[in-house]
Amino acid sequence: MRRKEFEMNEVENLEEIESFLQEMSFGFLGTVTADGEPGMTPLNFVYTNGSVYFHGSRIGEKMTQLKANERVTFMAAKEYAIIPSYFTDPLMACPATAFFKSVRLDGRAAIVVDPHEKAAALEALMRKLQPEGGYKTIDADDPDYFPRLKGVAVVRIDADRITGKFKFGQNMKASAKASITDSLAKRDLPLDAETIDLMNRYCPHHNRAIGD
Amino acid sequence: MRRKEFEMNEVENLEEIESFLQEMSFGFLGTVTADGEPGMTPLNFVYTNGSVYFHGSRIGEKMTQLKANERVTFMAAKEYAIIPSYFTDPLMACPATAFFKSVRLDGRAAIVVDPHEKAAALEALMRKLQPEGGYKTIDADDPDYFPRLKGVAVVRIDADRITGKFKFGQNMKASAKASITDSLAKRDLPLDAETIDLMNRYCPHHNRAIGD
Repeated sequence: MRRKEFEMNEVENLEEIESFLQEMSFGFLGTVTADGEPGMTPLNFVYTNGSVYFHGSRIGEKMTQLKANERVTFMAAKEYAIIPSYFTDPLMACPATAFFKSVRLDGRAAIVVDPHEKAAALEALMRKLQPEGGYKTIDADDPDYFPRLKGVAVVRIDADRITGKFKFGQNMKASAKASITDSLAKRDLPLDAETIDLMNRYCPHHNRAIGD
Repeated sequence: MRRKEFEMNEVENLEEIESFLQEMSFGFLGTVTADGEPGMTPLNFVYTNGSVYFHGSRIGEKMTQLKANERVTFMAAKEYAIIPSYFTDPLMACPATAFFKSVRLDGRAAIVVDPHEKAAALEALMRKLQPEGGYKTIDADDPDYFPRLKGVAVVRIDADRITGKFKFGQNMKASAKASITDSLAKRDLPLDAETIDLMNRYCPHHNRAIGD
């Protein structure tokens, strides 16, 4: 049932999911404490070699918790457009919604011990967040970095499942969708033009026309 | 120990926490499934009358899960600035960091049944996300809205704890902080000027000077 309900919003193209993860600088780690309570932490992260990596203090609360329960979920999300109700309905508030991309990984957190894997993950994080460079490459064999690498904890999420939900009006009637794209073009907020492109891209009829 | 480690970043001023929640259009709900797995959902939300409210389908997965386990965490976060390592260190990558605000609520999810509380929460959400108006006020006694209100689920988070973490270099040495504010002023990305203001605002020495 869930499959049917959400299929219009689910993205099955791993390339698009990966590209979104590469674009987002931070996400949220969801955990379960030893007492069974939900936990959440905002994190800078990098997606590299098919895994999400993040780092933290070796002796902090986050690591204590991950050692107690390795099951995690991780999510990055970006809101593209608030869609006001009056784009499609002159009276009722009900159609108000938001278009967004979100990607979620479910799996296990593995604390990385190999210094070369640690260095590679941190170097990938630096290339993502500081692409302009301006630092000495992180290398486990560099005596300047080796002791620092020992002092930092790096965690890899081994995902059992990766789900993308890109909501851009896929389940709407063509008339409502046309009304929204027209209104977004007029409103012209910074992400509105990109939102129109994404609505056209993820519209199943549009894809079908290209695919068939 | 945790208290000591993080005290520089924790915000205890409820007004600042509330103002951040009012500014953020979406956040993340963290749950624990019946099987003890962490769950996460991105949500538009409103903070009103001291509570976070969100809405959803009455028959969706989210409601099924909240009925099974009412313990939730909710977080909204905003990244203000990536701080490159070279702002403070010409060689090593280690000082690279990010400045951000995050607010987290821990508590129980209560499914709202009173139609007037539902209407008030949804109207507050509309005023937040669609402040320009353009819709008929949501009112439980309005026959146009009454059946729609019955059809939507509204959830209130009753928080046991609200925590704000606003990280703007509070634990840094004055020399590093000065170097970062100078570099941010030169870089001048859209949020950099605001980041400098926040660094000055949350600097404990600065606050002490004002307070004493």
